[in-house]
Amino acid sequence: MPSQIITLLTDFGHNDSYVGSLKGVILSINPSVTLVDISHEVTPFNIIEAGFILSASSGYFPPGTIHMAVVDPSVGGSRKPLVLITPLQMFIGPDNGIFSQVLKNNFPLSDTVATPHSSPLPKEVMAYHLNNPEFWTHPVSRTFHARDVFGPVAAHLSLGMKPELMGEKVKTLETLQLPDVDRSESRIKGSVIFVDRFGNLVTNIEPLFLGSQKIVILIKDHAIRGLSQSYSQGTPLLAIIGSHGFIEIAIKEGNAAQYLGVGVGDEVLVKFE
Amino acid sequence: MPSQIITLLTDFGHNDSYVGSLKGVILSINPSVTLVDISHEVTPFNIIEAGFILSASSGYFPPGTIHMAVVDPSVGGSRKPLVLITPLQMFIGPDNGIFSQVLKNNFPLSDTVATPHSSPLPKEVMAYHLNNPEFWTHPVSRTFHARDVFGPVAAHLSLGMKPELMGEKVKTLETLQLPDVDRSESRIKGSVIFVDRFGNLVTNIEPLFLGSQKIVILIKDHAIRGLSQSYSQGTPLLAIIGSHGFIEIAIKEGNAAQYLGVGVGDEVLVKFE
Amino acid sequence: MPSQIITLLTDFGHNDSYVGSLKGVILSINPSVTLVDISHEVTPFNIIEAGFILSASSGYFPPGTIHMAVVDPSVGGSRKPLVLITPLQMFIGPDNGIFSQVLKNNFPLSDTVATPHSSPLPKEVMAYHLNNPEFWTHPVSRTFHARDVFGPVAAHLSLGMKPELMGEKVKTLETLQLPDVDRSESRIKGSVIFVDRFGNLVTNIEPLFLGSQKIVILIKDHAIRGLSQSYSQGTPLLAIIGSHGFIEIAIKEGNAAQYLGVGVGDEVLVKFE
Repeated sequence: MPSQIITLLTDFGHNDSYVGSLKGVILSINPSVTLVDISHEVTPFNIIEAGFILSASSGYFPPGTIHMAVVDPSVGGSRKPLVLITPLQMFIGPDNGIFSQVLKNNFPLSDTVATPHSSPLPKEVMAYHLNNPEFWTHPVSRTFHARDVFGPVAAHLSLGMKPELMGEKVKTLETLQLPDVDRSESRIKGSVIFVDRFGNLVTNIEPLFLGSQKIVILIKDHAIRGLSQSYSQGTPLLAIIGSHGFIEIAIKEGNAAQYLGVGVGDEVLVKFE
Repeated sequence: MPSQIITLLTDFGHNDSYVGSLKGVILSINPSVTLVDISHEVTPFNIIEAGFILSASSGYFPPGTIHMAVVDPSVGGSRKPLVLITPLQMFIGPDNGIFSQVLKNNFPLSDTVATPHSSPLPKEVMAYHLNNPEFWTHPVSRTFHARDVFGPVAAHLSLGMKPELMGEKVKTLETLQLPDVDRSESRIKGSVIFVDRFGNLVTNIEPLFLGSQKIVILIKDHAIRGLSQSYSQGTPLLAIIGSHGFIEIAIKEGNAAQYLGVGVGDEVLVKFE
Repeated sequence: MPSQIITLLTDFGHNDSYVGSLKGVILSINPSVTLVDISHEVTPFNIIEAGFILSASSGYFPPGTIHMAVVDPSVGGSRKPLVLITPLQMFIGPDNGIFSQVLKNNFPLSDTVATPHSSPLPKEVMAYHLNNPEFWTHPVSRTFHARDVFGPVAAHLSLGMKPELMGEKVKTLETLQLPDVDRSESRIKGSVIFVDRFGNLVTNIEPLFLGSQKIVILIKDHAIRGLSQSYSQGTPLLAIIGSHGFIEIAIKEGNAAQYLGVGVGDEVLVKFE
């Protein structure tokens, strides 16, 4: 069954012609597809940030959705353009680790991935190297494969074209080492993995690690006792189970990232009392 | 008749997964609805700014449009999620005053509202507390009710579900005190209520107050004599009847807000000569 | 055949009600049209930047697409609202030079245009002055003709209304002088015409001028020898044939504009060795 939806996630920004050209190419091939922007404001070249946003949003779309994620600093180089077929959806983008979080969340890879690293695909996932130029738009530029390769392929897939026509099957793909938590009986050491527009600090600490014990959360010389039930509680810092399913540090109507001077990669410690 | 259009107005920004997740949820329930972004760049937590943008744009959409407006600093707290049914459209969002301007423009409330304040609904408007969990997406997070409550409800309403199934009828709602003008025979004292991207200063002074008298407009030590017919006239400051239907202060191809150092809340005085 | 797609290109930004109102007006007239945002982040009042983005993206859309481009500092003044009909698409916007690059790329005007300047239309193009108020939305504001004139006209055209009903035929239109390259046997002198989000410097030098000779590219005290095949090559500066079809100066995972302190209008020299 052809897909009705293609989502777009890039670092192209909104002040030039790139997003428009990409949409024009897709709509020229499939005028009735629904295009949904996930974001075009990924920090330039930041593959791990794009991977987080992709894995945080893709699961909310209907089965059959085609997600195109292009943060591609090596465009025109040797990295492979890929399509991944998972049991419910398809993912299109460069083979540079951008799918690491999608694969980890839905289809856990081994715990011992290096950075970046060629990993075997989970059993439930198939991948194809998009090396059949028949489904590209020509001439292909050296710098804009979203417009010339990924976009046209996404459009053809949305019309029901079979992915196996798009290129050769691949058995491994590049993955990035994602920051792991370090757990002992007395504490969990994690880190900030994302900062949203409000300055909320998303950590990689899952609440199921916490059990029913009392906790103190330590971040940059500040201690937060227990979890709040909403952003309205806390003086001024609070910790809460955020919408990504992780512990999140926030301030009521304030910006925790600015207040603490904390960003992605900084340590967060949960101590059991 | 089911609605074809859901508009979205939030303070989520474009550099994370929130808008994408919200759209995915809505399209999973109603894949054929048309989603229109009003803005996701509302200043974080700024309810009155969101209310202005909502009332300035909602009326231009077709009858049956569902407007979802979520600037919701108290998400997960005690504020009620609401749907308002006006004679032509529906509005979904938290009961925190975000609908104050919509209700004032279309359905004038009493002149004596406090800040914030529980006001009776106008006769033409019905409202429901969205407390029927059957129309939410589960599990409901503590921090992202746009995705888990408001979005799913909007999608179900767009399919023609009746609002009275969504929860209990309410008879009052929170409203914010909006800045009023102070009029005497010799002058009108108003204020700046919005600054647009160009630095144009939108005031709350309606031209019908002016009649046919000659006027001088005073703002931060500057005097502007009379109204211009286009942004091209004026040296350098000008006043004009803007597209929101209010007196607006502008500079030809310049930024009046920066030039004057003026922002929302600052006084504007119109003197009759 | 009615058009299915209207694209939008403006300098309105995303933090107010303008884009929402414009879309509401269009969807009120044609609820089933597909609206595609090219960009609303054009630098305020920058007509030449908008013209570049329009000409760089419009050709990728299907035949029949209606492109609306409104960067309109003289709104409400004497400039004419226009529709251009080219062999494949339609263009709507003010007669202030915003279509200069579209016309130059697709339908070369004489080489001797002044700034700005009334030029005869190419034979393949027709243009109408949108002066029939029957197709506007009333009352027409003094400051927002995208909502009140251009948007309604675009919507009516997308329903199949004939452009000749919209107003009087015009035979000349305003064009901006675009920066030309200066070529001799030993060198080409060009300039930067656009800077994208990554800081890549798009020049106006076309690769076909280069032939097969060895070249050195000089920009702000830096020399770049030859052309790279991808953004991944170069130490640190590189030159490449970019996706717009021009020579582009870039840095691998860096920002060439910031690195060099270079912007639109700065000189780029190609020397033949």
